[in-house]
Amino acid sequence: MNPSYIARCAQLAMILEVSATPKPGNVDRDHDFVDIKYEHFLASAIGVRPVFEKAAMSDNNVGSLIREAVEESAKWSGGKNTHFGTFLLIMPLIMATGKGDVCAASEIVQKTTVEDAIEFYKAFECVDVYLGKVEDLSVKDATSIDEIGRRGLALYDIMQISAERDGIAQEWVHGFSRTLAGARMLAEKVKEMSMNNAIVYTYLTLLAEQPDTLVQRKFGSSVAEEVSRKASTMLKDWDINTIRQFDDELIRRRINPGTTADIVAASLFVHLLEGCNEIA
Amino acid sequence: MNPSYIARCAQLAMILEVSATPKPGNVDRDHDFVDIKYEHFLASAIGVRPVFEKAAMSDNNVGSLIREAVEESAKWSGGKNTHFGTFLLIMPLIMATGKGDVCAASEIVQKTTVEDAIEFYKAFECVDVYLGKVEDLSVKDATSIDEIGRRGLALYDIMQISAERDGIAQEWVHGFSRTLAGARMLAEKVKEMSMNNAIVYTYLTLLAEQPDTLVQRKFGSSVAEEVSRKASTMLKDWDINTIRQFDDELIRRRINPGTTADIVAASLFVHLLEGCNEIA
Repeated sequence: MNPSYIARCAQLAMILEVSATPKPGNVDRDHDFVDIKYEHFLASAIGVRPVFEKAAMSDNNVGSLIREAVEESAKWSGGKNTHFGTFLLIMPLIMATGKGDVCAASEIVQKTTVEDAIEFYKAFECVDVYLGKVEDLSVKDATSIDEIGRRGLALYDIMQISAERDGIAQEWVHGFSRTLAGARMLAEKVKEMSMNNAIVYTYLTLLAEQPDTLVQRKFGSSVAEEVSRKASTMLKDWDINTIRQFDDELIRRRINPGTTADIVAASLFVHLLEGCNEIA
Repeated sequence: MNPSYIARCAQLAMILEVSATPKPGNVDRDHDFVDIKYEHFLASAIGVRPVFEKAAMSDNNVGSLIREAVEESAKWSGGKNTHFGTFLLIMPLIMATGKGDVCAASEIVQKTTVEDAIEFYKAFECVDVYLGKVEDLSVKDATSIDEIGRRGLALYDIMQISAERDGIAQEWVHGFSRTLAGARMLAEKVKEMSMNNAIVYTYLTLLAEQPDTLVQRKFGSSVAEEVSRKASTMLKDWDINTIRQFDDELIRRRINPGTTADIVAASLFVHLLEGCNEIA
């Protein structure tokens, strides 16, 4: 697969993900957040392309590619953090696809270096990310970079430390299993519903299966579990209006399951790669 | 300006144009047509990028670049005609920008050849375009291509013949004046309203100023003039709900001022080039 095609699949995945509505709690084509708009996501997905194309031709330097993607995205979206989590998840998938097999993403993340970890930490300088800290390695603290070097932590090590509290780090250390499951679900669902609804369905399924870790960090486990329980009821009795009410409620409470949305974007990328880039 | 940047501005222009809502009578983020969806437009804008980048490095072959754009776009959007008019309008602007001055687009179109005309006619083989015919040169009739060669018609000659009944051909022969006026209006309006509303305002202004030629061809002059009169009343008393009702009415009557939307996409491209690619 050529790098240009791979990059375009990744961009379209990001654009379809943010466009799908209603996607409870997240920015979609029908509503913005107070500080970040639908258009910021569109601009970010368009702007980041050269970095994706470079990634599709590379099998190392994940850390600097993520930093470059965050920087390029911020340039096009007025400095907003639109896709930090998505880049962290999608970059090894793009690189693996460039090598010929999306499933090789696990090998790529396992061979990351201390340099990758340092570059990843530098990416936080561009945008405001709600992450808290990895043990004592706060992303807000410049001394963390020295500490990473001193302790010889590779980016994969940092993801291992973070896996319990971060759904994307979990994907890195668990073979991107939820991303790939999401791709399989999309492939099934587009046979029986529109692409928009297949995305909403996949999002709710992933959310029901596992509490969103961004919600967990911001609001605690019981709120994250409550959201997942509600997502699961939406799936049992599929009704767009009920889903819309759930969306309204989460937006009102400012609860955004952003990690689940990141995984859906990555699932869409894998799905589109399989020749499904003609939108049904 | 580098070709990658130029191509991304053109893509983002197309995506912002189709996303802006309510844009009376056209596909937008809130409604599809029966046979063509919002997602088809997104996929087309993502897919076409390599052709745009090539165009930004070229100062001839407008005809084959348009044909290639139509083909690539169709591949990504399930064979739908999403952006035929936009490509015809935006391609010389991209090429001129690549040469350093968007205003050089007039020179580019004036030096088109018979080969450009033939390539342009070939583009109609990919998608279904509502165009009728240029004098006796029907796009549905394969003998037209021989006839173009026999009569030695350059693509610019064909646009001169079509200018009276086609708003995009008119742009080709009148120095892209409405496109540039639209870009100036966008630059003004984004100072006082959101990007979405600035696009809607510019669309309504262009529609009020001149009846849409696609509407004219499909429904006749009096309907096209009625639509323009209504657009002008929307501008006098700016109210999104009234504009939404106007949108509902046109959608119900299947009246789509598509040529005006194409011009807005081109205006957005010129606007974004001027460093305004950070979405306010």
